[in-house]
Amino acid sequence: MSYGEVTLVGGGPGDWDLLTVRGLRALEAADVILTDHLGPASQLEEFLDISRKEIIDVSKLPYGKQVAQERINELTVQHAQAGRRVVRLKGGDPYVFGRGFEELAACAAAGVSCTVVPGVTSAISVPAAAGIPVTQRGMTHAFAVVSGHLPPGHPSSLVDWEALARTGGTIVVVMGVRNVAAICSALIAAGLDAATPAAVIQEGETAAQRAFYCELCELADVMASNAVAAPAVYVIGEVAGLAQPR
Amino acid sequence: MSYGEVTLVGGGPGDWDLLTVRGLRALEAADVILTDHLGPASQLEEFLDISRKEIIDVSKLPYGKQVAQERINELTVQHAQAGRRVVRLKGGDPYVFGRGFEELAACAAAGVSCTVVPGVTSAISVPAAAGIPVTQRGMTHAFAVVSGHLPPGHPSSLVDWEALARTGGTIVVVMGVRNVAAICSALIAAGLDAATPAAVIQEGETAAQRAFYCELCELADVMASNAVAAPAVYVIGEVAGLAQPR
Repeated sequence: MSYGEVTLVGGGPGDWDLLTVRGLRALEAADVILTDHLGPASQLEEFLDISRKEIIDVSKLPYGKQVAQERINELTVQHAQAGRRVVRLKGGDPYVFGRGFEELAACAAAGVSCTVVPGVTSAISVPAAAGIPVTQRGMTHAFAVVSGHLPPGHPSSLVDWEALARTGGTIVVVMGVRNVAAICSALIAAGLDAATPAAVIQEGETAAQRAFYCELCELADVMASNAVAAPAVYVIGEVAGLAQPR
Repeated sequence: MSYGEVTLVGGGPGDWDLLTVRGLRALEAADVILTDHLGPASQLEEFLDISRKEIIDVSKLPYGKQVAQERINELTVQHAQAGRRVVRLKGGDPYVFGRGFEELAACAAAGVSCTVVPGVTSAISVPAAAGIPVTQRGMTHAFAVVSGHLPPGHPSSLVDWEALARTGGTIVVVMGVRNVAAICSALIAAGLDAATPAAVIQEGETAAQRAFYCELCELADVMASNAVAAPAVYVIGEVAGLAQPR
């Protein structure tokens, strides 16, 4: 019996109908689905007959964060090597802070065939859901998507926030709730206008979506006073001022 | 009779099955589809019964570029005001260099209801199709997507390429075939290592896909000697070195 195959599917930002057709078909064909709490994971039964599928919620694996990723890789490979069709369903796009390449590499190392189905990234679609285009002709010809999981200046940080402040492009920060005050201060210290429009969107593209619009210098306070919690995306740049709150 | 509605649909990078389910349903429900040569436009008849739909290829409108956008806006609004369900199908994501917000604004100005269905952006999915993740843990925690339609230093340029070179993130350039030499020179002059891995992908996520892998200082020559033409995306950063050519 030949080895099974693995498909990494980008599940999009939330509602299941933002899955791609290709991703949906992979889920329909799957024997095993490894999922977590992101993307359309909580809606699987709404759009899929799961009666003959094994669903593994990897967010409930009894391990610490780092170990959990190794265990996910192991499980993925083991099920494929048992000849089953395996889908690893991820939120957003597998290659945007999704560790997708690590999972692909783990499959490759084990000799398991793995393909990637791209998804609608939250970094673009969540601002869109709040009325914000990440680019706009005559206003910004670039945008950066940055992980805010480390504060500026942290020894492990790989981001030059001072340079980022000067690119002239929209800045989209994901995973940055905890460090918002330090990030906004660093951007302003680097010369970004404190009055630059900003917006934060919590649980975008879901029924629970909340969005707040303000200026860069107010963003940390606005998020604190409204108890904005992860998952949330914030957008800094002129385009945030285009939004029509809804 | 009430006004009709407009839906801007992100069609994804090429193959029609990278449409979202929501986008596909909007197309199925549409009376009129305004499309162009991007995304899944050429495959409409493969996945859609178009016998009762009016398909308008706006790329064939007999106008100059600037006027064409105004004519697209007019047509979109007119069909909606005639009470028809209108889909404007775009390549990639409507808000990533897609003029989506301009079309939304035109609808709003005319009192026409318009919603946006996000799509899989070529800026992320085309590198992925060539084996390149735009982010990778421990390697890069940010990526920038930049339009290369103007060369660095152009009076109308809104991009600070020197700052961009220093962010530490992956750089993805779209619409930059013509200006690749000037862009690479500017990045190197700003301090980006000339040996930084780079890749260019032409017609990604289609049967005609071609990809070339090299170093930043070679990119312009590689593209010229292989006659790389639009639509093409190039990626500059350590992640380009992760790709396994296929």
